[in-house]
Amino acid sequence: MSQQIPYKIYLEESELPAQWYNVRSDMKNKPAPLLNPGTLQPITLEELTPIFCEELARQELDDTTAYIDIPEEIQSFYKMYRPSPLTRAYFLEKALDTPAHIYYKFEGNNTSGSHKLNSAIAQAYYAKKEGLKGVTTETGAGQWGTALSMACSYFDLDCQVYMVKVSYEQKPFRREVMRTYGASVTPSPSMNTNVGRKINEEFPGTTGSLGCAISEAVEAATTQEGYRYVLGSVLSQVLLHQSVIGLETKAALDKYGIKPDMIIGCAGGGSNLGGLISPFAGEMLRGEADYKIIAVEPASCPSLTRGKYMYDFCDTGKVCPLAKMYTLGSGFIPSANHAGGLRYHGMSSVVSQLYDDGYLEARSVEQTSVFQAAQQFARVEGILPAPESSHAIRVAIDEALKCKETGEAKTIVFGLTGTGYFDMVAYQKYNDGDMSDYIPTDEDIAASLSALPNVD
Amino acid sequence: MSQQIPYKIYLEESELPAQWYNVRSDMKNKPAPLLNPGTLQPITLEELTPIFCEELARQELDDTTAYIDIPEEIQSFYKMYRPSPLTRAYFLEKALDTPAHIYYKFEGNNTSGSHKLNSAIAQAYYAKKEGLKGVTTETGAGQWGTALSMACSYFDLDCQVYMVKVSYEQKPFRREVMRTYGASVTPSPSMNTNVGRKINEEFPGTTGSLGCAISEAVEAATTQEGYRYVLGSVLSQVLLHQSVIGLETKAALDKYGIKPDMIIGCAGGGSNLGGLISPFAGEMLRGEADYKIIAVEPASCPSLTRGKYMYDFCDTGKVCPLAKMYTLGSGFIPSANHAGGLRYHGMSSVVSQLYDDGYLEARSVEQTSVFQAAQQFARVEGILPAPESSHAIRVAIDEALKCKETGEAKTIVFGLTGTGYFDMVAYQKYNDGDMSDYIPTDEDIAASLSALPNVD
Repeated sequence: MSQQIPYKIYLEESELPAQWYNVRSDMKNKPAPLLNPGTLQPITLEELTPIFCEELARQELDDTTAYIDIPEEIQSFYKMYRPSPLTRAYFLEKALDTPAHIYYKFEGNNTSGSHKLNSAIAQAYYAKKEGLKGVTTETGAGQWGTALSMACSYFDLDCQVYMVKVSYEQKPFRREVMRTYGASVTPSPSMNTNVGRKINEEFPGTTGSLGCAISEAVEAATTQEGYRYVLGSVLSQVLLHQSVIGLETKAALDKYGIKPDMIIGCAGGGSNLGGLISPFAGEMLRGEADYKIIAVEPASCPSLTRGKYMYDFCDTGKVCPLAKMYTLGSGFIPSANHAGGLRYHGMSSVVSQLYDDGYLEARSVEQTSVFQAAQQFARVEGILPAPESSHAIRVAIDEALKCKETGEAKTIVFGLTGTGYFDMVAYQKYNDGDMSDYIPTDEDIAASLSALPNVD
Repeated sequence: MSQQIPYKIYLEESELPAQWYNVRSDMKNKPAPLLNPGTLQPITLEELTPIFCEELARQELDDTTAYIDIPEEIQSFYKMYRPSPLTRAYFLEKALDTPAHIYYKFEGNNTSGSHKLNSAIAQAYYAKKEGLKGVTTETGAGQWGTALSMACSYFDLDCQVYMVKVSYEQKPFRREVMRTYGASVTPSPSMNTNVGRKINEEFPGTTGSLGCAISEAVEAATTQEGYRYVLGSVLSQVLLHQSVIGLETKAALDKYGIKPDMIIGCAGGGSNLGGLISPFAGEMLRGEADYKIIAVEPASCPSLTRGKYMYDFCDTGKVCPLAKMYTLGSGFIPSANHAGGLRYHGMSSVVSQLYDDGYLEARSVEQTSVFQAAQQFARVEGILPAPESSHAIRVAIDEALKCKETGEAKTIVFGLTGTGYFDMVAYQKYNDGDMSDYIPTDEDIAASLSALPNVD
């Protein structure tokens, strides 16, 4: 008997996850340890705690505990905007005339506009619990900064955001959302830090970079009493928090006895993808089930599909620990691509290891085809997606169209990480026909990879 | 036994309204009929149909049918973004330390960002069913234009939006959302219409007005084969469609046996307020229950609290029918107030009659106190509200604080009509401390009222 699946599957509050799932616990090949950037030796808890909160540093290093309790206060905050809906894309299926069943987990129904809030609230909680005054971070496109400012406002923590200067100027509305939540937003490079002053002196008129903003945020955290630095992606602790996405998705599917054939997510630093796939990858790792998992990245910044699996710095400023990951080289500068959240040179070490072990495949897609998918999706499903999320939409549509050819009724689940309300400049370019694609040459990638330290 | 109320009450799909409720059917004193602007006589169906679709004109004139079936296709579209959540504001209650129980019905979880989509999809449906090629409309702040472009895209109807020039230039992102949904957006006054060309000639460099944009949209509808004009508020048909808000709210409250003491909504043209209160006002009209209903309007445009109940034009261009309503005079020009959606000189004739009969009270609030409430709400409830919606938040907070004084645990329900993502210029003004209040003088209002035709 096939039960009628509603348009949106919501979990009851009592069905919400009370624990995060740590996929590393089920990995036979653990992600390689982080290295101290000074000694190039595996980093210790003691070395991590001047930068990160102690509990977060502990989570970062813990690759054996399977389930970690979500503190009561975080569970309570989650209820502000969770469960997020798992939506059956009936309208999209009809528009594509495909026999495939398409579902998407929509994480954009909160004011930060994305899944970033899931980890921001956890990181703010531990900072508060540790008695800190505040946290510092960097933001590029602005989703992470917004999420963190919301989380800090909730716990009455000071929130200092270093925002890449070009975004600060081009995205004044993102900045105002952060200010409304009480965060201070500083265009980077600034005159607040040594590294900012130095860069301003060396490159007068520079519009900044994520690498520089990270360096400023880390300096601000380590030179102010009672501050720590927080990061919105790449780290294993972030993937742990984001497992709430996958756990909810799995619970919603299980409720209706739905077994997905494939799970698709966009991949920048890997936080959304890693969170979404965690429980499913866990089943694969334990040999209980098999899924086709697809990571989708922009052709302009193809770390999984064209990068190398090696140790690299997590930041261009080279102040953070090194991680073993698929990388294009920390000096790689992706060309103008509007999916700001996917312009990261590397990839979460968890996702990298799973990819290297064959548990997931990767695809790169070009920007104009991504916006074409975004527009089609927006028109039939009524949600204007973020450019980042639209990478997953592109591949979900491609796979659904393959089903149309073969007549297979596959079940496709993808992560819709956020909304595009603050990305209208990119949509305007697309609407005006002014959008172009860019694919780095092999020489570009080889050059930035050759500059890396030789570890391993 | 008191049942634990969840943070968010979602209805099951099977609990969604299958009929709209027409509050006029239960009104002993019916709203006064619309008048033909040429003859000043009650307008007939035949006179309405050159401007409006036939079925919509019929709904406009029907003040006796209590329940009207929601067509299957509209019910299906509603499932794209409905039910909207009824949220228990636990976080706000805690922040205010009030014994009051606060609930809000959140209509902003769709890409149009507001409740406007509820009527847009209905109006587009009837236009399509009538075999029209397209519809025309005007938009100021842009919420209505966005909703209509989404609805037209769904039914593959042409959508021509005349957007007040100053908004067109200041809100390029709203414009791009509409374009993404395939609408053509023309800054008004334009050179497309006679009235636009005339105004451009008379007032070179004018940045336009809502009145002018309406006149252009009506001319465009009546001079193109297969087009009709549609309007997003004020009309009784719009309140009928918006009753879906109130019906869902009531069903969600009933599910948990909750009886509200007061219901609060912001009021511009009255579409959101009228929709939210419809089933509750119906109970009052039938003598089955009693509620305190509060309409909240900006002090800068106080049609209920300081206007006069008389016949007036619905538009400043004087091309639309006249309605008997609380009005400041169709020539009244509210000063710069960022709640663009509340800058209407008049008020729905249904809401006006209910107000005149004492079924609801009205309050006007000043802009800076509205933004103060908006910021407080955003910080604790995690939703950045639209300036319009924040008028209702202001009064809900005021009432909750009164409960704190008296110790009464009253149940307050308010309508949160939308999000403020496209209103960050106003938030920036508030964040910068550059926001000011404005209250029109009695002379201002008397002057614009004296210019009205003397009917009644």
